[in-house]
Amino acid sequence: MIKIAEIISIGQELVLGEIIDTNGAYLAEKFTRVGIEVRYHTRVGDYKSDLTEALKIAVKRANLILCSGGLGPTEDDITRQVIAEFCNLPLILNEEALAQIEAIFRERNLKMPENNRIQAMIPEGATIIPNKSGTAAGFCLAYRGIEIIALPGVPSEMKKMFEKLVYPELQSRSKNIIVKKLLNCFGISESALGQKIAHLMDTERNPFVGTRVRCGIISVRIQAKSRTKEEALSLISDTEKEIRSLLGTFIFGEGEERLEDVIFSKLAEKKMTLSTAESCTGGLIAHKLTNVSGISEYFLEGIVSYSNEAKIKLLHVPEELIVTYGAVSPQVAESMATGVRSLSGSDLSIGVTGIAGPTGGTAEKPVGLVYIAVSTLEKLQTEKFLFRGSREEIKERAANSALNILRLLLSTATGKKVSKNIYTCPCPGSGAKDMPSKEKIIT
Amino acid sequence: MIKIAEIISIGQELVLGEIIDTNGAYLAEKFTRVGIEVRYHTRVGDYKSDLTEALKIAVKRANLILCSGGLGPTEDDITRQVIAEFCNLPLILNEEALAQIEAIFRERNLKMPENNRIQAMIPEGATIIPNKSGTAAGFCLAYRGIEIIALPGVPSEMKKMFEKLVYPELQSRSKNIIVKKLLNCFGISESALGQKIAHLMDTERNPFVGTRVRCGIISVRIQAKSRTKEEALSLISDTEKEIRSLLGTFIFGEGEERLEDVIFSKLAEKKMTLSTAESCTGGLIAHKLTNVSGISEYFLEGIVSYSNEAKIKLLHVPEELIVTYGAVSPQVAESMATGVRSLSGSDLSIGVTGIAGPTGGTAEKPVGLVYIAVSTLEKLQTEKFLFRGSREEIKERAANSALNILRLLLSTATGKKVSKNIYTCPCPGSGAKDMPSKEKIIT
Repeated sequence: MIKIAEIISIGQELVLGEIIDTNGAYLAEKFTRVGIEVRYHTRVGDYKSDLTEALKIAVKRANLILCSGGLGPTEDDITRQVIAEFCNLPLILNEEALAQIEAIFRERNLKMPENNRIQAMIPEGATIIPNKSGTAAGFCLAYRGIEIIALPGVPSEMKKMFEKLVYPELQSRSKNIIVKKLLNCFGISESALGQKIAHLMDTERNPFVGTRVRCGIISVRIQAKSRTKEEALSLISDTEKEIRSLLGTFIFGEGEERLEDVIFSKLAEKKMTLSTAESCTGGLIAHKLTNVSGISEYFLEGIVSYSNEAKIKLLHVPEELIVTYGAVSPQVAESMATGVRSLSGSDLSIGVTGIAGPTGGTAEKPVGLVYIAVSTLEKLQTEKFLFRGSREEIKERAANSALNILRLLLSTATGKKVSKNIYTCPCPGSGAKDMPSKEKIIT
Repeated sequence: MIKIAEIISIGQELVLGEIIDTNGAYLAEKFTRVGIEVRYHTRVGDYKSDLTEALKIAVKRANLILCSGGLGPTEDDITRQVIAEFCNLPLILNEEALAQIEAIFRERNLKMPENNRIQAMIPEGATIIPNKSGTAAGFCLAYRGIEIIALPGVPSEMKKMFEKLVYPELQSRSKNIIVKKLLNCFGISESALGQKIAHLMDTERNPFVGTRVRCGIISVRIQAKSRTKEEALSLISDTEKEIRSLLGTFIFGEGEERLEDVIFSKLAEKKMTLSTAESCTGGLIAHKLTNVSGISEYFLEGIVSYSNEAKIKLLHVPEELIVTYGAVSPQVAESMATGVRSLSGSDLSIGVTGIAGPTGGTAEKPVGLVYIAVSTLEKLQTEKFLFRGSREEIKERAANSALNILRLLLSTATGKKVSKNIYTCPCPGSGAKDMPSKEKIIT
C-alpha cells in the first residue's frame, strides 16, 4: 500500500503568523526520502474543534498523520486530548514518561509542577516516543489502519525524536522509493526554460518534472517514484540527460549547489585565484564567495569601491574615464576589474558598477543598469544588464549574474590560460568609447 | 459576519519541504491585524485534484480563501485553472493583464513567449490584481458568498500586491483595530531580555507583549487591540515607555529598522564617513551597509582582505603583527581598522578578523572566535567574541555585532568628535601584546 502522509502543525502562534513553521518542510523532506508521499500540510490553532476537524479530513486522504505541537503542559496544549477523544481512547498515565519528566526536573534541582503530569499521559495502547531534551513526550498509535504520530512542536526536540525513533522505522519499512534531483540553472527566464521542457512537465509523468525560481536561479526538479533506488535513479538519469541536452550550459549545478560553490570547485581544479571590485553590489559578491568554506586559498581580496575616490585611489581607475563616461559605464567596470586584478595579482577578477536604486537613476541610466566586467591576463569581457526589483533584489541579481559570468568563463578556462571570449578589449581606457559592449537584458 | 480566513499555499516545492513557506505567516499576521480570524492553513502540491479537494474543504469552513502560488507560466502552475473549474467559470483573457506582461518583456527588449499568455487569463467575472514586479497577475472573485483571492507565490511579489491592493480593502472593512509595534534589540540574550519584561508577557494582557529572535536580533512585539487607532496607540505608548526604561540602549530601532539603517541615520546626522576592513565576515558588513539607499555619501570604501597579503599590502598591517599574534588577533583587527581608515580618509572605520569555520579552528583559537575593532581619529576600541553556529551564522552574528558596536559608538559621538570608549589604545602595533581587549562571549 502506498503511504500518503499528512502533516498537521498545531499552535496558535502558527495560525497567527507569529512564527514561521519550519517543521513542515523538514518532515516533508524526510518522508519524501523514504517514499512516503506528502500531499497535504495543515496548520491549525489551539482550538479542540479545529484539530478534530483537521483529523477527520486527514484520515480520509492520508494513512500516516504526523501531528507536531500542542504537547506542552498548559491549558492551550490540546493535541493528546484531541487525538485520544478522536480515537475513542482514554488517556493513561505512562510511568516511563513520568519518570523521565521527573528526572528532568530533578536534574535542575526543581520539583515537578503538578501541571507537567499531563505530559506523561498518552492514549491507551499507544507507544511512547521518549523526549530526551524536554518534557513533552510523543506517541504513536494505529487507528483503523491509519498511523497517527504526535511529536512536540519545538523544532530541536521534534527533530531529535523524529530522527532517532521515527525515521529509522519508516526507512526499514519503505517499499516505494522517491528519489529527487535538482538541476540549478541561471541565465534564462522561467518561461523560456519552461517552453524547452514543457513536454516533460506533465504531473502524471514518472519522473515528474517541475521548476522553482528565486532571484534568477531556476531549479528544475526531477522526481522519480519506484520500487528500488536503482530503478528510480535510472528513471531520473534518462530524464536528466534529456534536460541537460535541452538546457546546456544554463545548468550550473545540482542539489544545494550555489553559483559560488561551482566557482570554488573550478578555481580549485584550475588552481586560479580571484579578486573582486564592487560598486553597486556593495560587497555581496565577496560575501557570497566567502560563504564557501575553503575559498580563502583562491579568493585573495575584494574591494568595495563605493566612492569615486576609492575607484581612483585604490583601483587606479583613471579619473578621465569617470568624468567622460560616468561611474556607471562599461569603461569603468573594465577599469575596476583590471585595477583589482593588478592590485591583488589574481588570475581572474570581476568589476561591477551600476545603479541599485531606488534613487540615482536617469532616463539614460535608469535604476537597475549594471555593467559587469571580467578580466584575465589576456581578456576583458563586459556585459550590460538591466535588472528590475528593489535595491536588494537588484544587488542580488547583479551578484548572481557576475558569478554566472565567472562560472562560464571558468568552465572554458584551461589552467591559467583562459579561452576566447565574446568580446575582448586589449587595453582598458584607450579607445574605450568605441568599444561595443555585449548587451544582455535579464529579467 | 465574522470573517474566517483560510490560507492555501500551493507548490510542489512546499509539500516536498524544499522551501519553507513564509507567505502563510505573513498573511496570517496581516489578517489578524484587521480582525480576520485565521483558523486553517493548508499546503498542497501541484496536483489539480489536491487543490480542488482543498478548496472543497475550505469553502465549508472559511469565508475568505487566499491562495498563494501556482500562477506561473509553466505546465505545473495550476491555480487559475483549478479555481476557474471549481467555480464553474471559463478562463477569460484579461487585456489589461496581457498588456502589462507584454510591457514587462518590451522593457527588457524581449518578445513575450507564447507561454506567458496564460498568465493574463482569469476566471470570468473575477477582478484582476495587477502585479507590477512580475508577470503573474492575481485575481479575486466571489463564489457563493465566499471571497477567493489568488496571488503569486514569490514572496516579494505577493507581499507588494497584498500590501497595495488587498490589505487596504480589508482594513477599510475592519471594525476591531489591532496595532503592533516592534522594538528591535541587540546585545542581550533572549532569556535575559525575557526576564526583564516577564511581567508584561501575559497573553491576557492588552497590549500583549511577545518576542521573536533572529541571529542575535530580538524584536519585542507590543500588540494592542482596540476600537480606535488612537486608543490602541495610547495603550502601546504606556507599555513602550516601560519596556524602553527596562531595556535602555539594547533597543536600537523600531519596526523594520535594521542596525545598518540606524548607522546610516547617525552618519548622516553627524556628517561622518565610514570605511570597513573585513576578513572573516567577507564583505557582509559592506553588503549590509550598502543595502541602505543613500549610504554612498557616507560609506567610502570596504576592503575584504581575505589573504594575509591583502592585509599587508592594502591595509598596511605590519607583517610582524601577523607573525607574532596571528591573523586572528586583536592586534590585527586594530591594525586593519586603522589601516582602512587612513587609506580611505574616513572618520570611522571597522576591522574584523576571525574564524568562521567549519575548519581552521584550534584549541587556542576555536571556530567562532572573532575580534572587532573600531577606529576613530582619537580612539581604538576592540572587542572579542565567541560565536556559535554554522559558517553563515557566525558571519551574520559577527557582522551584526560589528554594526552594533558602531551604532553604540555613533550614538555617543558628537559631530566629528568621538566620546570616550571603554578601551583605548593610542597606537596600534606598539606594545599591543599587553593590551587587554574587552572580552565578550555571545552564544
